Amino acid sequence: MKGFKFKGIVAGIKKGANAGKKDLGLIFSTRPASAAALFTENRVVAAPVIMGRERIKAGVCQAVVVNSGNANCFTGDQGLRDARETARLAANALRIPEELVMVASTGVIGAPIPMQRLIDAMPALTTELDNSSFEDFAQSIMTTDLSMKVVVKKHKIKGEEFTVAGAAKGSGMIKPNMATMLAFICTDLDISSTLLKAALKIACERSFNRISVDGDTSTNDMVLAMANGMSGAAVEDSDDALEFETILNEVTLELAKMVVKDGEGATKLVKIVINGAASAQDALKAAEAVSHSNLVKTAIYGEDPNWGRITAAAGRSGADVDPDLMDLTFGDVVLVKKGVWQGVEAEKRAAQVMKKSELEIVLDLNMGSFSDFYYFCDFSENYVKINADYRS
Amino acid sequence: MKGFKFKGIVAGIKKGANAGKKDLGLIFSTRPASAAALFTENRVVAAPVIMGRERIKAGVCQAVVVNSGNANCFTGDQGLRDARETARLAANALRIPEELVMVASTGVIGAPIPMQRLIDAMPALTTELDNSSFEDFAQSIMTTDLSMKVVVKKHKIKGEEFTVAGAAKGSGMIKPNMATMLAFICTDLDISSTLLKAALKIACERSFNRISVDGDTSTNDMVLAMANGMSGAAVEDSDDALEFETILNEVTLELAKMVVKDGEGATKLVKIVINGAASAQDALKAAEAVSHSNLVKTAIYGEDPNWGRITAAAGRSGADVDPDLMDLTFGDVVLVKKGVWQGVEAEKRAAQVMKKSELEIVLDLNMGSFSDFYYFCDFSENYVKINADYRS
Repeated sequence: MKGFKFKGIVAGIKKGANAGKKDLGLIFSTRPASAAALFTENRVVAAPVIMGRERIKAGVCQAVVVNSGNANCFTGDQGLRDARETARLAANALRIPEELVMVASTGVIGAPIPMQRLIDAMPALTTELDNSSFEDFAQSIMTTDLSMKVVVKKHKIKGEEFTVAGAAKGSGMIKPNMATMLAFICTDLDISSTLLKAALKIACERSFNRISVDGDTSTNDMVLAMANGMSGAAVEDSDDALEFETILNEVTLELAKMVVKDGEGATKLVKIVINGAASAQDALKAAEAVSHSNLVKTAIYGEDPNWGRITAAAGRSGADVDPDLMDLTFGDVVLVKKGVWQGVEAEKRAAQVMKKSELEIVLDLNMGSFSDFYYFCDFSENYVKINADYRS
Repeated sequence: MKGFKFKGIVAGIKKGANAGKKDLGLIFSTRPASAAALFTENRVVAAPVIMGRERIKAGVCQAVVVNSGNANCFTGDQGLRDARETARLAANALRIPEELVMVASTGVIGAPIPMQRLIDAMPALTTELDNSSFEDFAQSIMTTDLSMKVVVKKHKIKGEEFTVAGAAKGSGMIKPNMATMLAFICTDLDISSTLLKAALKIACERSFNRISVDGDTSTNDMVLAMANGMSGAAVEDSDDALEFETILNEVTLELAKMVVKDGEGATKLVKIVINGAASAQDALKAAEAVSHSNLVKTAIYGEDPNWGRITAAAGRSGADVDPDLMDLTFGDVVLVKKGVWQGVEAEKRAAQVMKKSELEIVLDLNMGSFSDFYYFCDFSENYVKINADYRS
């Protein structure tokens, strides 16, 4: 990918069990890039989100600094000053205008940013950059993530090749809307910030906004896309825009699924598909209710085809449902047909399907023609362990 | 308590680990009682709920049969026939009209009711009744409950004493609205079914509708109140009604707290109080969001005063909040004052407060004058264990 350079280093911001791990990352475009971003919908937001919402209005960005040790949230005016100072320090080191630097952060809420560590780390962060260290960057944004989340795709528009590279981090507090986590998408395609934003919104709506780990919405999350136009490929008409949108959605969906798969304590990735809803809202409501249900999630962890919990979750979702019309399948096994349980044998086969690490459950409400989906993970003892111990 | 008799027996409906435990209960009033009931708001409802909603319209009830082994939910027309047959069998044995018998059930969803077991058990259930076996009844309605939930209070109206006795069962799928669990309240007070229903609604709104264990809403839940008027005490005017309402709310609140305390895997009972909300809805939304947050619940389990998760939950609740105005206290420890963290010492003291088995957290939004509250429990590995293994 042309014109993007990355870095990921240990700045000593992470503490406790994570001390000594990479915790400071940089994305740098050799020239200013079209940029668009989406932010958490939580009313309590971190300082970098406040600053980022302001800066992204210009539609241009050249560098992003991410720290994964401290959320810089609930840190008041000092937090905002620290976010701005972080951007200024990086801008000076990179010799670019500070308005072109975005900042993102994730980690513990409420503690002040250890600015001296950032100051000390800035030379190492901003020198010896290269375009092969995307994985270092992806590692530097991890918190409780067990695996690095990177997707790189190449595509052609009118014969000209371009690259879309995405990195994301989870893995708790994963719930839409647009409050999923941190994700950064770089492309060397030439596209306006307006079209980039439109494509990003659609891509996120069908990916990051359709996943759930624990139903909590973080204060810090952002998805940032940068397009520096250095590949030679350009979006010139609506067909090109649609093509880019498709490839961008592929990248965000793969990242989103990685986030769910690596959900805190997760052992399985589940897709719930709602078909036959009376309205688009009903389809989404039912999918959300199933994917957020702790009872559904623990049953999946236990490999128990406890379909009653799924139909009950749809029942309380607010969607228009009739139990006597529901069809429910686990993988290729029909468990319920028009509200009637299909018996012990079907349930045994469903239990077999559940042993796989990926599972698709389809609930047809048979009330209309609308569909939607959600990806979610199961819920194990480890989720509790991770989150009961996170700060200690 | 005059004129009420109870029974709780082993009918062989429970399976697996619970096989051999009491699973069939009876409440019988020697004369028809004023009655009122509230039911689950889930759109998927069990057969006894469908039948109960119809029967309770008459405002009179003389007997209730409860089974705790099989939910009789998602059982179609057969389920409804089985519920009616259960009522008919009990009515015949008790020699009362079948319309005066209510049925409630809880347990596994989707399996047909083993009617032969009910038929075989009916003689034992309906003979040798006495008014000292309220605890047997309370035990017979338990599923994963670890403790029996019984509250009995005596009170006087115009010098005449009456009793209010309540029994409830939890302990998963505990979430309002009125979808909390099974609860049965008997009183020998003389009160009309209209006033009884009004009092029950208010009492439940401030008790069962303010608790959360896991955010799921069951398909089966009902709260039933019966008043047979045999004590000599009577509700004759609005002052009397208010007095009864108060005592009824004491009973339902104590039962509700017992349900939370015995929530699946719970180790702590927490009351979240929201003060200073801009509207009543905001106060409730914020209280709900905090009490349903898995991140808050796991932090409390870990005795970690992770206040950022509480303020973040309020932030995503939809309530109008400003992080810079929030005050947050754990017990008597002020952790956040006008959005500012009160330091390491305060946090250490808060951690001490959290070691107790009961905890009150107060979040003042300082946006207005509205308050609300919620009781909830923490979230431990055991919740996952219980719910991953429930049917196996």
